[in-house]
Amino acid sequence: MAVSPPEPFFSGPGLDRADALRADEAALRALSDAPDATQLLWREGLPELTPVGRLDWGPPSNPELFLGFDGKSPRFSAIEPVAPDAWTAFPLMAVLDPADAPLFAAAMSLCRWHGRHRFCANCGAPTDVVRGGWSRRCPACSAEHFPRVDPVVIMLAEHGGKLLLGRQPHYPQRRYSALAGFLEVGENLEAAVARELFEEAGIRVRNVRYIASQPWPFPSSLMIGCHADAESDELTIDTSELDDARWFTREEVAAALADDPGAQFQAPPKAAIARTLLEHWLAA
Amino acid sequence: MAVSPPEPFFSGPGLDRADALRADEAALRALSDAPDATQLLWREGLPELTPVGRLDWGPPSNPELFLGFDGKSPRFSAIEPVAPDAWTAFPLMAVLDPADAPLFAAAMSLCRWHGRHRFCANCGAPTDVVRGGWSRRCPACSAEHFPRVDPVVIMLAEHGGKLLLGRQPHYPQRRYSALAGFLEVGENLEAAVARELFEEAGIRVRNVRYIASQPWPFPSSLMIGCHADAESDELTIDTSELDDARWFTREEVAAALADDPGAQFQAPPKAAIARTLLEHWLAA
Repeated sequence: MAVSPPEPFFSGPGLDRADALRADEAALRALSDAPDATQLLWREGLPELTPVGRLDWGPPSNPELFLGFDGKSPRFSAIEPVAPDAWTAFPLMAVLDPADAPLFAAAMSLCRWHGRHRFCANCGAPTDVVRGGWSRRCPACSAEHFPRVDPVVIMLAEHGGKLLLGRQPHYPQRRYSALAGFLEVGENLEAAVARELFEEAGIRVRNVRYIASQPWPFPSSLMIGCHADAESDELTIDTSELDDARWFTREEVAAALADDPGAQFQAPPKAAIARTLLEHWLAA
Repeated sequence: MAVSPPEPFFSGPGLDRADALRADEAALRALSDAPDATQLLWREGLPELTPVGRLDWGPPSNPELFLGFDGKSPRFSAIEPVAPDAWTAFPLMAVLDPADAPLFAAAMSLCRWHGRHRFCANCGAPTDVVRGGWSRRCPACSAEHFPRVDPVVIMLAEHGGKLLLGRQPHYPQRRYSALAGFLEVGENLEAAVARELFEEAGIRVRNVRYIASQPWPFPSSLMIGCHADAESDELTIDTSELDDARWFTREEVAAALADDPGAQFQAPPKAAIARTLLEHWLAA
């Protein structure tokens, strides 16, 4: 198993977030006035890309979110309304430079969170943007609210050299992908993986291994990719969650990843960690 | 490295959550009327324990939260106000049976979340408890809000056979533990580990490995335990976050875990994943 750890899309350091500066309002104002300060450009609810797939920037006009430093240059964004349908972002993801993907994800998730969290969940009053856009504070009850990151387990189950993949109803035709679900309070990764695979496919698993993780900004998930060994290949599919789930051989997975015309199914797209998990499994 | 994967406190399957039933209000009502239905007992903002450290149960009087099934017996809780100071729960954790710990964590986190989220973050209106207590829905704008799970990275950095541990200002005297911090939008595990270690201790790391994870219900964290290799042992400590950070030898860590009177520091308590990470490192 001399396979190097996989690097899913949206992974990487992104900007220097300089989080110690967020609480210093005077410093942030000075930074947004700096000659090399820039603000992310948006169009129709999505960050704008240059023709070569980099994020595009203009002069600061409404620098509500301090995203961090690109080298020494401060980068900001306004709090923009985000396109409600995640699928509209998928064409952009196909051309987005991986070096800018973490920042794209952070800006999307932050803006989406602000759009849905203008009021205090504790008392109902309108809240103020503070900490350079990294939290909101309630002037009425003083509660502070931080952006959500929702952990999701996404996993391959293996049995007798075959992998379990499933189809959600909204998938493109012939697409199969890794099963997934939100981790709940009171669970760790291993417990969530076991629960989801039992709920959705009726299988018991052991030996759950973490493989890789990925921020997924639709709207603010942390996808935690795992691999598990199934104790049997007998499936009981939860048809309220999945259209179908099936076991695929190594050759079938390889054909799908290669876009072979005879492939049994269509593999998940390059930006999805499910594809990273499949590639990692084939390479092992 | 024939070390079996560590099992931190609060880990394990807990109850069968039977999440498919949550949306069925009639079924939940029938379950709460069942002769073997029980409701979690609380005292002073914490679940009550029997003398042998099991969760204690009484007849359903206000079964607002459907926790799941213990075998075939349905288990509920009221939405209780939770003790605001996490430290008050620590004595209970020392006697809590590990088999009941995941359920203790789920009940604490759910109740705490309801207490702080009675209003709609999207429009400010009071919200209703739905799905057997596993979400809240806004009657005004129809937004649905789910309980938060906040991922936290907690990690050991290693250099030349020594481990980096730090002291937060609120720790008991002589306590050192693993460094930790909230994962942010746009980051994966590996990026968050690298950012936190650089922010808090000024070190660059590579080869970040996932070790184990743990729900931590104060109020609703998912602690994701990792190990990383530091590129140097030169520290620049962020004194706004840490009182101190130091490198400890294998012998010093072993002495602390053994509560040796001559130990250089006091190890984290058994319920904390930081201790699991230290034990796992020593055993490797």
